[in-house]
Amino acid sequence: MAIFGAKRDLSPRRVLEIDVAQMAALAERQLSDAIASFERRDPSLAKIVMAADLRIDAAHQHIEEHAVRILEEKRLTGVKLREVFIAVKVAGELERIGDLAKNTAKRLLVVSQEPPIDSVASGIVRMGRQCLVQFSDVLDAYSNRDVRAAQAVWGADDNIDELYNSLFEEILTAMMRDPKHVNGCTHLVFIAKNFERVGDHATNIAEALHFLVTGDQVAGARPKGDETATTAVPLPNEVV
Amino acid sequence: MAIFGAKRDLSPRRVLEIDVAQMAALAERQLSDAIASFERRDPSLAKIVMAADLRIDAAHQHIEEHAVRILEEKRLTGVKLREVFIAVKVAGELERIGDLAKNTAKRLLVVSQEPPIDSVASGIVRMGRQCLVQFSDVLDAYSNRDVRAAQAVWGADDNIDELYNSLFEEILTAMMRDPKHVNGCTHLVFIAKNFERVGDHATNIAEALHFLVTGDQVAGARPKGDETATTAVPLPNEVV
Repeated sequence: MAIFGAKRDLSPRRVLEIDVAQMAALAERQLSDAIASFERRDPSLAKIVMAADLRIDAAHQHIEEHAVRILEEKRLTGVKLREVFIAVKVAGELERIGDLAKNTAKRLLVVSQEPPIDSVASGIVRMGRQCLVQFSDVLDAYSNRDVRAAQAVWGADDNIDELYNSLFEEILTAMMRDPKHVNGCTHLVFIAKNFERVGDHATNIAEALHFLVTGDQVAGARPKGDETATTAVPLPNEVV
Repeated sequence: MAIFGAKRDLSPRRVLEIDVAQMAALAERQLSDAIASFERRDPSLAKIVMAADLRIDAAHQHIEEHAVRILEEKRLTGVKLREVFIAVKVAGELERIGDLAKNTAKRLLVVSQEPPIDSVASGIVRMGRQCLVQFSDVLDAYSNRDVRAAQAVWGADDNIDELYNSLFEEILTAMMRDPKHVNGCTHLVFIAKNFERVGDHATNIAEALHFLVTGDQVAGARPKGDETATTAVPLPNEVV
């Protein structure tokens, strides 16, 4: 798992940090490839994403084991302890983002065999890209220990939720108009939901960074703009 | 957060254990109430579940902060360290199960206003109950440190995935037959997915217990029986 040749000369905590950064880069790549496979309706890229998830899972286990070894070796306090604690937490979030990328790729295998709905597909790609930006931004904030930048990511999650809400309605309407779209659209709505979850995980990383730097948990409820759990769409006239 | 009056006489690690047990009981109750609200199409119970999620989130933060304080105080090794490490991990899984219970309750608010589809609803209740059993079993295994019992939960996740796979097809078919069912069914498919995720979190707790007791991560891929990401259902004759 070395990204620098001289990793053995570094402190165990520094190696842990590098391992998390490397895992983050993997997860970012997976998400980006999942979006690209969706945009290009490219099953072969989707299969590459599905296969590569094992690497993320292995990195996750490795980071957990390493963190335990670090804590066994020496009592840490304050920010040094929180660095290790949060590295494990962030690795857990990255693992979930990897799962969501993999699940998106799997669903593309079905979607690519169904009649395309261009307006919905382009909305999903737009949403996916926005999630990727959020995710990249929070990773930058994390590696720079920049709480203010993380806060911006935290606050912007609402925009993703708004995109998701409008996509949700659009997809349901497409299903109502034509039952031929039910299969594809069901997977589309899950893909959109996957991206919405990526936004939530980015928010979790932002909160973790806050705790790392300040020692305090983020108080109050997080921004919560996904309203689709209580959304019902009127039947379009064609099918009433 | 005291469940025993004399908590202040206990060691910090024992208090952490009690806090996790109490959080687990909360999550179990939330899941059970979410299933009941769905079965009885009961919006008032659903709203109670939605409101109670805040208590689970607070318990999660409390456990994380407590774990950091324990590690700051004293260097721990071996199983004592893993106890603390895994308490945090399990609390994270419980928090997610709480979220899924809340999301299920929210969706019931829509579902209860749509025309019921009895066969699907009873299948979802059956699946929910099976997930609740899995979850309760893994919590028992965790509190008894019983790796063998946890392994049984781990192995049984396939049954839940099978139930989910057949429900998924049934729900899609209902949507294709009648566009009036699209709204309700979309939420039903997400509720079924929520339960399937509860099964995954139970599996994660089983794996965490394995690491706690043995010091080794579970090797190899987990049982993975949810095939719906690549499922497409043929159009029923009525609508072709």
